[in-house]
Amino acid sequence: MNHPRHALDEVIHSPVRFSIVATLAAAEKAEFGYVRDAVEVSDSVLSKQAATLEKAGYVKVTKGYVGKRPRTWLSLTPQGREAFTAHVEALRAVIERTGNPAPT
Amino acid sequence: MNHPRHALDEVIHSPVRFSIVATLAAAEKAEFGYVRDAVEVSDSVLSKQAATLEKAGYVKVTKGYVGKRPRTWLSLTPQGREAFTAHVEALRAVIERTGNPAPT
Repeated sequence: MNHPRHALDEVIHSPVRFSIVATLAAAEKAEFGYVRDAVEVSDSVLSKQAATLEKAGYVKVTKGYVGKRPRTWLSLTPQGREAFTAHVEALRAVIERTGNPAPT
Repeated sequence: MNHPRHALDEVIHSPVRFSIVATLAAAEKAEFGYVRDAVEVSDSVLSKQAATLEKAGYVKVTKGYVGKRPRTWLSLTPQGREAFTAHVEALRAVIERTGNPAPT
């Protein structure tokens, strides 16, 4: 179990979740609509994927109001931030792992 | 369709295929057993995933002999090499795309 692919995080690897997490990694918290537009997904896709990330303990979903308008914010938990960093490291390691020249 | 996740290649994105392609990107061609051991998969998994990559036009499978022993070599096609480079670029873009600070 030495190949860095084993360190890829299945929850984060999906392109949409990877994009959501990367977007959240750049901010302390982000409004639902901002993330939806940034990642270019529908409300329902973002809801579903955010729930998956929340269940994994990676994302915190906060509901509140701005004036009378309901708002939802998403943020990475410390665990989610750590998982994203580790996942990016694993991706880099897979890309850069050339090992010994392959025998031909 | 501006988010770089749209440029991620579904064929290459799977962790095992990503690892196979990354391994092949480091060499002109590589022996089947070398790739299997490097990526830490079984013969049957590598056969199946190599076939998927071959069908996509990304990998060339060559059979031959070393002495009397049959050997299989895998190599990236020019198209596969290009797809890998583009995929890695897209990953980097997703990671680095911070955009404007998210409104909080």
